[in-house]
Amino acid sequence: MQNFDYKNPTEIIFGNGRIKEIGERIEGKAKKVLLTYGKGSIKTNGVYDIVINSLKEHNIDYVEYSGIKPNPTLAHAQYGAEIAREEKVDGILAVGGGSVVDESKAIAIGACYKESLWDFYDGIAKPEKSIPLYVIMTVPATGSEMNPNGVITNELTKIKKGFRTPLNYPVFSILDPEVTLSVPIEYTNLAAVDIMAHSIEAYFSKIDNDSYVLDRFVEGIGKTVLESIERLNKNPKDIGARENIMWASTLAWNGLVHCGVGEWINVNHVIEMPLSSVYDMTHAAGLAIIIPASMKYFKEKYKNRLEKYGKNVFGLTGDNIAEKTIQAFENWYKSLNVPTTFHDAGIENPDIKMLADITMKPLGDTKFLTKNDVIKILELAK
Amino acid sequence: MQNFDYKNPTEIIFGNGRIKEIGERIEGKAKKVLLTYGKGSIKTNGVYDIVINSLKEHNIDYVEYSGIKPNPTLAHAQYGAEIAREEKVDGILAVGGGSVVDESKAIAIGACYKESLWDFYDGIAKPEKSIPLYVIMTVPATGSEMNPNGVITNELTKIKKGFRTPLNYPVFSILDPEVTLSVPIEYTNLAAVDIMAHSIEAYFSKIDNDSYVLDRFVEGIGKTVLESIERLNKNPKDIGARENIMWASTLAWNGLVHCGVGEWINVNHVIEMPLSSVYDMTHAAGLAIIIPASMKYFKEKYKNRLEKYGKNVFGLTGDNIAEKTIQAFENWYKSLNVPTTFHDAGIENPDIKMLADITMKPLGDTKFLTKNDVIKILELAK
Repeated sequence: MQNFDYKNPTEIIFGNGRIKEIGERIEGKAKKVLLTYGKGSIKTNGVYDIVINSLKEHNIDYVEYSGIKPNPTLAHAQYGAEIAREEKVDGILAVGGGSVVDESKAIAIGACYKESLWDFYDGIAKPEKSIPLYVIMTVPATGSEMNPNGVITNELTKIKKGFRTPLNYPVFSILDPEVTLSVPIEYTNLAAVDIMAHSIEAYFSKIDNDSYVLDRFVEGIGKTVLESIERLNKNPKDIGARENIMWASTLAWNGLVHCGVGEWINVNHVIEMPLSSVYDMTHAAGLAIIIPASMKYFKEKYKNRLEKYGKNVFGLTGDNIAEKTIQAFENWYKSLNVPTTFHDAGIENPDIKMLADITMKPLGDTKFLTKNDVIKILELAK
Repeated sequence: MQNFDYKNPTEIIFGNGRIKEIGERIEGKAKKVLLTYGKGSIKTNGVYDIVINSLKEHNIDYVEYSGIKPNPTLAHAQYGAEIAREEKVDGILAVGGGSVVDESKAIAIGACYKESLWDFYDGIAKPEKSIPLYVIMTVPATGSEMNPNGVITNELTKIKKGFRTPLNYPVFSILDPEVTLSVPIEYTNLAAVDIMAHSIEAYFSKIDNDSYVLDRFVEGIGKTVLESIERLNKNPKDIGARENIMWASTLAWNGLVHCGVGEWINVNHVIEMPLSSVYDMTHAAGLAIIIPASMKYFKEKYKNRLEKYGKNVFGLTGDNIAEKTIQAFENWYKSLNVPTTFHDAGIENPDIKMLADITMKPLGDTKFLTKNDVIKILELAK
């Protein structure tokens, strides 16, 4: 194992029917919140009414800021920051999936900064203050509810960037699995691809085979995702499966399973980002295209990792397990109707040079990934 | 899964050679600390010198308070609280194993309270303040480095009690596996019994079989302990195994694997407490006596749990897996030279009525455990 520091201050409030605690939980912490959400699914599934009633009951004032997109944009976040400032809110309440939470994180730091909040994503400024963030997570996938990360797309340059600051850990997050019963199974399948991708990023980018306690946690998350998705595709109302995948989603990307890995970068996520911003595909589809290709490209380097995962998660035996593991991922994606190549996604001539340029611009060549690697991986993904 | 709230504010600083960061980490947080430790093993393994040098380098004043026993006593803790008050320390630095940390937690809350600190353990008072606690964990076992729990023995009444308050989460804990290379293998084996016991307490006291993400984490810890101990008994200097068991120890008892279990009590720990206080045996020996007996007693009730664990951790197959799982635990304890019955521990006539009385006094009959259960379990442990 490699050295690590780990601290995660977010409180998790998990369980069916717990959204109605929101007012009680915010009371004493904030008097007026910016209530952020997406395109209104929370109005059809009943969440909006529960939240509003609870806020009113506890005399918490609120201003609404909705319309957050699946790939949230800088302009919308910047405008949200302006409203938060003008309205003098002392809390931000994000109600939605990962995109809503990610943009709310941008608003939380942007509201305390007088220049463009893109400065943080560009690395030319560091946030010193933020407005406290409270979360109701309605679509488990990104893990944003218990981490300090957020991704925003600059709609002018098409550049999608991630940023992390300890200021962006939510104070608390309510995870209410019952709410996820209304998420259509197609979205749940896409979310599962994302959760799985989070959990394996570090697992498949280390050569050190000797942090086995963490490997077992990653494998446990992998098996949980497979099992839950199988159950949910049979019965989308299976609350046990909804509960397990929701908590697995948080655990996959809250820093825990990355403890002890040492230096690494999230190769698949990094290469995927230009795909979903340039071609406006879902993040999960982009991941399902990149992951098998990057596994093929790094097959020799991470052979022992592929074998370990294949045996312990997919239950593979016999020869050529590394290869079979890659196939198992591809088959799983296909079973969820998620494309695994550019071709399958309807992109016949991906602009590989441009995608590689966008990928490497913020990163530069690293020991984990060079521009040449990215080009070869994208070629394998055609 | 059942509803839960989870928050753990302790920062973990993990890695070989990291003890020397202690001064830097405390600087700005405390000016004068009470340095607590046990009977002096930290002076022979070099830890003491590293700590003192680092504190001096960063101009942090300190007062020493040593002599903490393996089963720490109320009198010693109370006196430590008096010294902390008199010396006006603004931090407590615990350097040692679980006993040192547990007593330091008692000191931290006792120093801010003018009556007997036993009041907290008796439940007749609640702590409102504490002195911040910093930890260097040198013998992984109790998980105290990342939880708010502590156990103290009232040496007059022989009553051993646990107490938890969020005030007792350490601010940070340094976990330096290199230091544990000097822990004799016999102690490491005892520690492993304790770690395993922590991880399984909730697993074997729930009937709900559907929190499978957590089950997999528990099973992962179990397999990690078995693998690490096997390696360490071949080569006590195996640093990889030391690293994994150290982090597994923290994860086993920091609240994480108990999320979603619902109501439960730590049956084995509760019944064990009187054993180690009355007969002055090690906590681990007491656990190895109680666990197989309680598994036998509850075999039908928790049959599906025993089977699941046996298959997934011990790799058992065939018929009667529940029974084989209990045997596997017994065999494992025996392989570590830990007694699994009163008889093996040299106690021919345990005073079962007295032990049951002490167990039930603070607890009363619960739906998880009645006095009759305790008596029957103790009988099975003869």
